[in-house]
Amino acid sequence: MMVLVNGIETDTLSVHDRGLHYGDGLFETISFINGQSLLWERHLNRLQRGCDLLTLPIPEITSLSEEASRVVVGAAQCVVKIILTRGIGGRGYRLPEDISTTRIVASYPWPSYPENYSTEGIITKICKTRIHANPQMAGLKHLNRLDNVMACQELDRPDITEGIMLDYHDHVIEGTMTNIYAVKDGKIRTPDLSQCGVAGVMRELIFEIADKLNIGYSVDGMSVDDLEQADEVFLSNSIIGIWPVRQIDEIRYAPGPVTLRLSEEVQRLTR
Amino acid sequence: MMVLVNGIETDTLSVHDRGLHYGDGLFETISFINGQSLLWERHLNRLQRGCDLLTLPIPEITSLSEEASRVVVGAAQCVVKIILTRGIGGRGYRLPEDISTTRIVASYPWPSYPENYSTEGIITKICKTRIHANPQMAGLKHLNRLDNVMACQELDRPDITEGIMLDYHDHVIEGTMTNIYAVKDGKIRTPDLSQCGVAGVMRELIFEIADKLNIGYSVDGMSVDDLEQADEVFLSNSIIGIWPVRQIDEIRYAPGPVTLRLSEEVQRLTR
Repeated sequence: MMVLVNGIETDTLSVHDRGLHYGDGLFETISFINGQSLLWERHLNRLQRGCDLLTLPIPEITSLSEEASRVVVGAAQCVVKIILTRGIGGRGYRLPEDISTTRIVASYPWPSYPENYSTEGIITKICKTRIHANPQMAGLKHLNRLDNVMACQELDRPDITEGIMLDYHDHVIEGTMTNIYAVKDGKIRTPDLSQCGVAGVMRELIFEIADKLNIGYSVDGMSVDDLEQADEVFLSNSIIGIWPVRQIDEIRYAPGPVTLRLSEEVQRLTR
Repeated sequence: MMVLVNGIETDTLSVHDRGLHYGDGLFETISFINGQSLLWERHLNRLQRGCDLLTLPIPEITSLSEEASRVVVGAAQCVVKIILTRGIGGRGYRLPEDISTTRIVASYPWPSYPENYSTEGIITKICKTRIHANPQMAGLKHLNRLDNVMACQELDRPDITEGIMLDYHDHVIEGTMTNIYAVKDGKIRTPDLSQCGVAGVMRELIFEIADKLNIGYSVDGMSVDDLEQADEVFLSNSIIGIWPVRQIDEIRYAPGPVTLRLSEEVQRLTR
């Protein structure tokens, strides 16, 4: 729809940008409805944490919010992607002396997922592609995403909507584009992301909602067995909100009360 | 110096390229001297292996070699970087239906390393930044290189030329831009790269030279202790050839006979 690179409307970028050469940067994918994003602050907070960790100079927040407002004009509902990279650098990993962060703010059409994904749930599979452990970068939404790309190649049946990724120690970590939760005896459990995975802003919101609704939750190691034994499984991200899972490979679930209660509350707070 | 994107001279790229968004691609860094690269075939073989693994359609080799010839015109000595990405894709990890590989062929000035790096050796340190294990991608020169970038940030003293990277299990893996070798009792040992690291084309050449010169070598797990106990340590890549290491943190070495003999042979074969 519209792309701004450092505030200028364009669809090209310098071929010397370190985002291309090394994945040296971060991104956020943000839902905008009627020109507003109710999770804006949370996305910006994660971006700030990522910039601190990568020692990437963060642009003025006002530039980012002005630019987001510009790219969403006229769209009732759309997705804004912000990419920050370490800008233009010479050949080689070493940082250039003057770093000027590249700031990309782009709008995309709202994805056309069927309505019943939110109510009846989706079919998923466990991917063979593993997600690598890297505690230094864990939780960040950085631009090194080959694992996710390779896992998505395994989603080769049109009825399979999402892939679930394990680490190399057989821990369940996340979906390719979602966080994952198991509900057992009314309590939520979601994987520990201290070794790998993206700590979603929707995951953060779900913790707060669970607190408010007095639904217990824990962040912990999770195995495929834990999924098998769960009463309900659901996925989240800031675009889809919550999707119940109705199938993981041959394991079947019905959308349960905890999932539907949370989903309702997420919709109320973000739509 | 000169950049060709899909055969056209330009210094910009589509902002929708998957190389930027996900690091969804591969690269090679190739030495050209008087318009020739003596390791060209080896680089192209690694690129082919990477494309197979990432299921990335590889461009015609003739396009790549014609384009490399174009960008090096007039340079006695320069570096050619080839980047292949999975081209333009929508928002999201899923592969677009029509994949058209983006092909970037660029020349860069020859790096101005001091002459005595090759003869007297360089000073290195062991980086705190670890290199993550990812057997699926190990050995490949893909575009997900944040670990290397972060490690290079630690090279904060001008006399430190290279950083040595360990994995999370304290195995020595490689330098930020080089492979590493320890010599003990006349035999070479170099880290196993089945979990992580880039399998350099110069490393491959060094194995062949070692065979020819009847110098024993092994590919194996390597610890910092192994480096401490080594008689000689050296680094390699296809641009620098071989650099002896004269210091790793507080451990000191003199350039030894095995390193110098190999270095001489590498120079004879590649210059």
